[in-house]
Parts: sequence; structure tokens; C-alpha cells
Amino acid sequence: MSAAHTLQALHALSAVELARGVAAGAFTCEDVVRDCLARIAEREKITRAWTNFDPDKALAQARALDRSPSNAALRGVPVGVKDVLDTFDMPTEMGSPIYRGHRPSDDAAAVALSRAAGAVILGKTVTCEFAGQTPGATTNPHNPAHTPGGSSSGSAAAVADLMMPLAFGTQTGGSVLRPASFCGIVGYKPTFNTINRFGVKPASEALDTVGLMARDLDDIILFRAALLGLSATSLLSHKPRVGFCRTYLWDETATESRGAVEDAVKALRSAGVDVVDVALPVHFAEMRAAHRVIDCRDRAMAMAYEWAHHREGLSPALRDRLQEGCDIAHADYIAALRLGERCRSEMDSVFGACDILLAPTAKGEAPKGLDQTGDPNWQGFWTLLHVPALTLPTSKGPNNLPVGIQLLARRYDDERLLSSAKFVWETLTAKRH
Amino acid sequence: MSAAHTLQALHALSAVELARGVAAGAFTCEDVVRDCLARIAEREKITRAWTNFDPDKALAQARALDRSPSNAALRGVPVGVKDVLDTFDMPTEMGSPIYRGHRPSDDAAAVALSRAAGAVILGKTVTCEFAGQTPGATTNPHNPAHTPGGSSSGSAAAVADLMMPLAFGTQTGGSVLRPASFCGIVGYKPTFNTINRFGVKPASEALDTVGLMARDLDDIILFRAALLGLSATSLLSHKPRVGFCRTYLWDETATESRGAVEDAVKALRSAGVDVVDVALPVHFAEMRAAHRVIDCRDRAMAMAYEWAHHREGLSPALRDRLQEGCDIAHADYIAALRLGERCRSEMDSVFGACDILLAPTAKGEAPKGLDQTGDPNWQGFWTLLHVPALTLPTSKGPNNLPVGIQLLARRYDDERLLSSAKFVWETLTAKRH
Repeated sequence: MSAAHTLQALHALSAVELARGVAAGAFTCEDVVRDCLARIAEREKITRAWTNFDPDKALAQARALDRSPSNAALRGVPVGVKDVLDTFDMPTEMGSPIYRGHRPSDDAAAVALSRAAGAVILGKTVTCEFAGQTPGATTNPHNPAHTPGGSSSGSAAAVADLMMPLAFGTQTGGSVLRPASFCGIVGYKPTFNTINRFGVKPASEALDTVGLMARDLDDIILFRAALLGLSATSLLSHKPRVGFCRTYLWDETATESRGAVEDAVKALRSAGVDVVDVALPVHFAEMRAAHRVIDCRDRAMAMAYEWAHHREGLSPALRDRLQEGCDIAHADYIAALRLGERCRSEMDSVFGACDILLAPTAKGEAPKGLDQTGDPNWQGFWTLLHVPALTLPTSKGPNNLPVGIQLLARRYDDERLLSSAKFVWETLTAKRH
Repeated sequence: MSAAHTLQALHALSAVELARGVAAGAFTCEDVVRDCLARIAEREKITRAWTNFDPDKALAQARALDRSPSNAALRGVPVGVKDVLDTFDMPTEMGSPIYRGHRPSDDAAAVALSRAAGAVILGKTVTCEFAGQTPGATTNPHNPAHTPGGSSSGSAAAVADLMMPLAFGTQTGGSVLRPASFCGIVGYKPTFNTINRFGVKPASEALDTVGLMARDLDDIILFRAALLGLSATSLLSHKPRVGFCRTYLWDETATESRGAVEDAVKALRSAGVDVVDVALPVHFAEMRAAHRVIDCRDRAMAMAYEWAHHREGLSPALRDRLQEGCDIAHADYIAALRLGERCRSEMDSVFGACDILLAPTAKGEAPKGLDQTGDPNWQGFWTLLHVPALTLPTSKGPNNLPVGIQLLARRYDDERLLSSAKFVWETLTAKRH
């Protein structure tokens, strides 16, 4: 990425830089989009991040914005949209042949809100089938033999590959944080259901969260502010009290991910940050099974129409998952929901005096092969906890692929998460340079 | 209703009776649908419960079921669907000119699940504009000068008017319980988000719940069991410990609603039921304002597309409501969500030793006039509490219109609610006859 940055091409600029440049008249919205389109033309045959993508449509949006000046927060900033979010002017195919060419009548709320904030919807990015685990064709921009992660595969890969600065993902298990970590970008899953989910094909309404991806933390802050209508589009850095949370998966975590977290702890301590060990209650390990029960049962219910009419159009893996969901007893489903609520109610004492927790984002760097998207367990139980989660790309693995660290805050404490993350990011960046 | 019941017309039978009759070969699915269609033809010009309704399509479904015998729980039972739930074979217009003729590509999950259980989707019932407060043309079957309640107006009126035994509604404030009470039927709002909401146009995803309507409690139990895939489609009556909960609205509650609850308390005590007074904590009164904040803000976010593209197609009242939502600060929205969570966490101690609470369903009987649907406050805070709620038609008001009593249970305790309600219903019915 550093080489491209040196060129100062528009496509490599951050959303903050692009919005500022457009507002200052340094370049037009059309300039920005043209440059992103050129980058996509150059890289797409390797990265394969897009499922639907129409340069003329993107340019038309940019020209319309150039004709009607405004002070909208994202004016002229290109955004990629995971192909499970509806768009009124582009197909929404959900990574499934069942929905090939499907045209929704309207925009998902998150898409409409970003358009209202001046964003250019560049196109639809590759998703695993129905935001599940059956991958599309996207490759990891750092090494095309490795998975970009999923299910928000195309969004993560396109942002990492400098095709545009911002993208939407969704997370039910680990579908924002894991691909962001694998592709070396910043991924943010807000507190459950705080970015409106209308128009997102649901996997599990008890878990689904619209998330954001960018290369810079300040871009995440800007993007979030624009979607929520906040007046402040930036946040000050806040020195946090940090809980080092190995989680019940520590022994299964790869060396590079453990090292990334341990290095961050060391650097933060050197910077005078109070870092304490935080252990999750033992029964939190039961969330792994509970997450699976909720995910499978909710998917089976939400896809009752496809199950009845298009079963042959589902991948064998998804058919198995839906059958698993159909076979789950309602009482077991309720017990899983109750476990999630119980664990959520205990999070305040888990955090104690800490502002944020620091944990591995993923098991390790992106695994080799495009037939899977990596293990969602490192992200899934946090999703069930409904806490806001952020991954920062701080390290590299044995194959020189990116490795992230995960920061988490209490539910609804997203601004503390983001301002604390700024401090963490500044500290770790200062250390490395 | 009693006259029609005496005729033993199929349209006046309960879902349990219809399913049993079809299964026993006493009549065909087509017989059932024909009889419902005749009833609709007779009554619709007064009741105006339907927004989209195609006799041929309903008959075709019935004939298809007759050709392929099964032991599905709802085989041959006609169901009305509130017109905010998607149907692949009928328009879904959401009570708005913006969506006139709109054809979704698939069924809402609840619709698909009921079809999979053998139900006949009879048609789409009138909803207030986007399940809000701007009414459609439906009248109260007990007196066409009075509102049927809303927003599930057509579903409640059609069930009450013996057009079919079962209907879907949705409740964000009081949109299932209030029309059920006004029309003199049984309305059931399950624990939040336990009937899958995919394909329902959202008002507020933090509040929206798919609910069920029927004339008989056993029909609600059957309908719920079919949707959730439960093996037991009936429940035994359970003598509950009851909390008499006047709520913070008691002084604003009309005499007939207070009387209905007090009469029920007396009858239950006579039947040996332990009824204790239960008071809500004082700060629960703040839920009224919190509910409005969440409702307005979520609607504004979810309808960002309509706001951008079709503002002129919204009613003035809804435009005002969405503007109110746009003006709510994110911090105030989060504070409202937090208040809801806090109150939910206190419900266990509110219930104490009680199995269910008994409270007024609505302020009183259905008000006169079709330009409003009544006051949602008697139902709205319970919706924010996410508890399962049921209304039983036990009484009459000064205009001889129905008045219900509301039963509530702890979250996820829906089976206890329903089995307790059976005991309450049997006790009150025995008293009256």
C-alpha cells in the first residue's frame, strides 16, 4: 500500500482526505470516481472484489454531485456495498444464483443514508452466499492464493486494494472483523443494531450488524458520524484503561495473533497505559455453541421461502446448515438466546474499570486457499455479546500477511471505543516508525 | 358473531376445527376457502378489511392443497396477512401510495412458514401507512362508525368479522393488541423477535414484533406452534399466580377497561387464584417518551430511501414523525434504548412470584371515527419491555363495543403466558355462562 500512497493517487487517499479535497475544490467528485475506476480496472482481474459494478452509473452519481454543491459529510467519497444490502439502481444478488439479476425496489437504509451524506455508491462487492460461509471468487490483495476472509470478502479486499476508501459489510459471526484483519484494514462492528438494518438480507436478526471498513480509523469515525447524523465527524484520542483479554480461545490462537496482542500490550504499557488482565467467566465458552444454534435456527426461519421454492439453488453447505437449523428445538433456541442475554448482563463486571478490552481479532493470518474464509469463532462470541468491536492492522504473520488486534467496548460505548482506538493506533504507529 | 356461529358455516369455525375437519375429510380446503370468500363478499363493503385480495389465487392454493394430502398443522386454514409482510404472489403496498402495485420477489418468513404448514394465504389486509398511525379504510365490524384500531386494522377486523380464523399483524407500539381489543378477538404479541421478521417492512427494529390474531385462544396456540415448528400444537390450562398491574396509566384508563380488569381479578380470586397487586417502578413511566424516541428515530433511519425519493408520497403526519426522528440526537436515542434495557432487567423482580400480570389492554373501547386508531400508550411500553402479551375479549364498553384484558409474562415465557391465559379464559367464560 505504501507505494501507491507515495503516488498520491486519489484512489489511495483516505475518505477524510477525499471529502476535504472535494469540499475545497481541489478535485471533483468525478475525478475521484475516475481514479477509483482506473484502479479497479487495473486490479480487479486478480482481486475479484466486485459482483456488480457499472462505471457509467458511478460516474453519473459523481457528476450529479458535482452539479449540486453541498456540505454533506461524505460528498464525493466512493463507497463499496456488500451485495446483501439492497440498492435501488443496481442488482442485489446475495452471492446466490437464486437472486441472479434481482432488482430491489429501494435502497437499504445504510445505503440511502450514505447517499444522503453525499457518498457515491461505486458498486456491489462480493459476499459469501447469503452472508454465510460459502465463498465467492475474491482473493486476498496481499496474496491471491489466500482467502480475503468472509463473508464481507469483496468489501475488505477492495478497500485493502485501494479501490475506494470505504465499504459496508455485515457481521453475524465474524464477517466484518475477520476479512478486515485478513486484508490488513480497519473493520468496525458497532453495537448491535445501531446502524439501521432495513434492506439487509438477514442471516440472524439476533446477531446481524451492519459494519464499516476503511484503511484509516478516522475514516471509520467519519463514515459512522455521517450515517448517524452526528455533528462531530472526528473524535479526540483518549488514553484508555485496557483489559488484556486472552479469551477462552487463547490456546487455539496462532502465534502471530497472540504476538500481535502481546506486542500491543507491551507498547501500551510503555506509553504509560494501565493494562490489566481480564478473564471471561468460564461459562462464556458456551457461547460458541449458542451462537451456532441461534445462527442456524434464525437462518432456517428467515430463509423459509428459499427453502420451499429454491432449495436446489442453495449450496450443499448452506442446505446442511439450514437443515441443522430446522432440526433445532425451539426450547434449545430460546436457551441459546437466554445464554447470550446472561453473558451480556455480565459484561459490565467483566470490563470492571477498563474502557476497552484488547483481544485477538482472528485465529491468525489469512489461511491459504479460496474454498473457505477462515474460522469465525474468534469474532462470533463478541457478536453474540452485542459489544462494539474494532480491528486494527498492527502486525504480520509468517506468510507476511496482515494480522489485526481486536478492541472491544461496552454496548453503546462506541465513541469510547473509537477514541480509545485512536490512542492505541497512535501509540502503536509511533512505536513502529 | 353468535348468529353466524349457530349456522356452523365453515368461515365461522376456528382454525383448530378447520384443520381437524380437513384432516378428517369432513370438508376440503376448497370448501373452506369458498365459504370464507362468500363471507368476505357479503361483508367487505362495510368492513373494508382487504387491500389486495384475489379469490382465484386463494382457490388455486386450496385446490393445490387438496391435491397433495399431508398432515401439516394448518392444512387448509385461511390466513390473512397484514400488508407490510411480503408475499411473492400478491402485491405488498404497506398502506402507502409509494408502494402501489409493488411486487416483492419472495415471501416474508412468517408467510413462508405458514404456507409450509399448509395455510392458505387468503390475501393482504389493510394496514395503517407503513404500520404507523395514518389509518386505512377499515371499519370496526361491531360498529362501522368506530375505528377497528391499528395499525393491523384489516387483520383484526377480518378475523372479528368471521372472514377467516387467523391473521398476521405486527406490533411496534400497540398494533396487534389494540385492534384485537377493539374488535373483540384474541391478539398475541410474542416475546420480541421470536417470530422471524424477515420480509416485514420495519418501523423500528428495536420494537417490531410479528403478532397473531384469532377468535380463539387455542387457535393462537396452534398458529404459533405451526410457525415455530413445535411438536405440541395445544397446551394444557395452567392455574397461574397473577399480578394485578394497574400500570402508571390507571388514572387515565377509561371505566370500562378498568372494570374489565377488576372483574377478571374478582373472578380469578373466586376461582381460588392468588392475585397480588403489582406496581411498576416509578421510572417505568419514562418509557412512554423513550418509546417515542426509539420509534421516531428508527422509522426515520429505516425510511431514509423514501425520505430521499418519495417524500411527497408520505402523509403529512408521517412526514412530521420522520422529521421528528431526523431531529433526535443520537445520544438521546441511545439513552432511550438504555432505559428500555434497564426496565427490562428489572422485570424479573416486578413479576416476583407471579406467572403473569393482568393489565388493561387499551384505554377503553374503540373510539368513534375512522380518522385515528386509538391511543397506543397502553400497549407501547410493554412492547418496549419485549415481554409476550395477549389480549382476551372479556367485556363490553358503554357503546357495547368489545373491551379486552391484557396478560403479560416474562420474556421467553410465552408458553406459560398461553397456558395461564387458557385458565383465565376458562374461568371468565365459565363465570359468564
